[in-house]
Amino acid sequence: MTDARAEGTGTGPGATPPAPVVGAEQAAREEELLQRVLRSFDTCADPRLKRLMRSLVSHLHAFLRDVRPTEEEWSRAIAFLTEAGHITDDRRQEFILLSDTLGASMQTIAINNEAYKDATEATVFGPFFVEGSPEIPLGGDMSFGAAGEPCWVEGTVTDAAGAPVPGARVEVWEADEDGLYDVQYDDGRTAARAHLFTDERGRYRFWGITPTPYPIPHDGPVGRMLAAVGRSPYRASHLHFMVSAEGCRRLVTHIFVRGDELLDRDSVFGVKESLVKDFVRQAPGTAGPDGRRVDGTWSRVRFDIVLAPAGT
Amino acid sequence: MTDARAEGTGTGPGATPPAPVVGAEQAAREEELLQRVLRSFDTCADPRLKRLMRSLVSHLHAFLRDVRPTEEEWSRAIAFLTEAGHITDDRRQEFILLSDTLGASMQTIAINNEAYKDATEATVFGPFFVEGSPEIPLGGDMSFGAAGEPCWVEGTVTDAAGAPVPGARVEVWEADEDGLYDVQYDDGRTAARAHLFTDERGRYRFWGITPTPYPIPHDGPVGRMLAAVGRSPYRASHLHFMVSAEGCRRLVTHIFVRGDELLDRDSVFGVKESLVKDFVRQAPGTAGPDGRRVDGTWSRVRFDIVLAPAGT
Repeated sequence: MTDARAEGTGTGPGATPPAPVVGAEQAAREEELLQRVLRSFDTCADPRLKRLMRSLVSHLHAFLRDVRPTEEEWSRAIAFLTEAGHITDDRRQEFILLSDTLGASMQTIAINNEAYKDATEATVFGPFFVEGSPEIPLGGDMSFGAAGEPCWVEGTVTDAAGAPVPGARVEVWEADEDGLYDVQYDDGRTAARAHLFTDERGRYRFWGITPTPYPIPHDGPVGRMLAAVGRSPYRASHLHFMVSAEGCRRLVTHIFVRGDELLDRDSVFGVKESLVKDFVRQAPGTAGPDGRRVDGTWSRVRFDIVLAPAGT
Repeated sequence: MTDARAEGTGTGPGATPPAPVVGAEQAAREEELLQRVLRSFDTCADPRLKRLMRSLVSHLHAFLRDVRPTEEEWSRAIAFLTEAGHITDDRRQEFILLSDTLGASMQTIAINNEAYKDATEATVFGPFFVEGSPEIPLGGDMSFGAAGEPCWVEGTVTDAAGAPVPGARVEVWEADEDGLYDVQYDDGRTAARAHLFTDERGRYRFWGITPTPYPIPHDGPVGRMLAAVGRSPYRASHLHFMVSAEGCRRLVTHIFVRGDELLDRDSVFGVKESLVKDFVRQAPGTAGPDGRRVDGTWSRVRFDIVLAPAGT
């Protein structure tokens, strides 16, 4: 193997890694096998499934022919998937962690939320959203006692033409300062999650907590993969948003904290520069925008949201 | 999506499927994400692991950008892997079945057994080999009572220069006429498996049973995948061989039965034309080559084996 092959990484047109140097007879055997596997899907009556399977097989075989795994390496890959399956249960989803840490979840999000003018970018949904969060009024507190530094969050929701979107539903959720979401506790609590609606001028505002970093579950095969390649399991600090309004594409996103040292190595590749915001720390004892007295420090952040039209 | 894209299947140089038609900003976002994921492996100290992970990520993202899965489709892929993990235990290995039915096992075999002059081709190992099979003498019976039509198997083992290989160890195993290997029964039997050694002229011969087709386990997600795409779970009839000798590359292969209607749709893509042999049916009551009297019909087949040199 040459360094050129090892560095062949592009996937755009013309960026195919150089083919491995194998003899003509060997290359013909490998190609014949691939074509035989592809033909096996000729009987598939569902055109979308046929397309998915043929593409999967093409890329899978291209991977094999590129890295030329030993039989031992392939067995280890099978064992990795087996272990991921066995650690997965109702509360733990190792295959989603795998998809997340290989950037596949984020790529799927990118594909399904195509760039539209200056519409706010989407990012990963994550496993901690819960249907039926409590509603809070404008200016209400979504922390419900979750531990953390208070944070005032405000902004507007507009459409791509710049018009305010009144009555948009804004769902927000986040981890507490111990790095845990409410559903990760065993006591059935609901905290640091809520929804509210924008006012007639498309404005929203609420109290939450300043986001802090936390690791994804890393005591399984995905965690060992991250350790083996020298990567951190930590997610950059973030606050989740899901915003829906009539006539607009639903937006699932986060905002991140400017200055967080994890921004460039978020374990699931969720960070987009446009989603990094200034969480401005406020001195202890200063009053909040709504007159609330906070004992210690607090922070405030502005996040103006632009929704793409539905169907884009 | 165009038909041209749906049919983009080659993987050789220049055969990259056309890139999906997305806007420039969207394409840039997707490429930027891929590059970010690739850079995350810069910290990997093991060059082989780094190479494997970068190639995996490149091909995985190329697949996603090619088929552009909906979020629902990606969730179903995660659910498929989860189910495969949950059905896998000490006796059932759904990920190997998946690898087999996508041709990945056979491609790995092909990669690790590169074409060498007229050396006999390899095929899949399968899950039913057992260490410590009984030894039989030349001309012995490896069926040990397994149900099936008797079959006389004979041939030579030579090296790539044509010289006989004396003392080569020939392991053979097969399913009975009910489509089951001995280890699939609960009674601890050993049947239809044995090993023997070639004589001073590289010759071997034994009684076995005429191979018959059987399905791979198809009551799990892989079986449902096969059904969804209109493929059969059946394997073409075959007899397993593993041949080892000092100074030669170990050969793991099968022979197949010419005329078997499943030859062109073996569920694991194990069939190679060079491995399809004439199993010649013999009239009832005719004597075997060793004088054995067989009540019903029997068959005979010749399989001359050529071993590549070790290290090729």
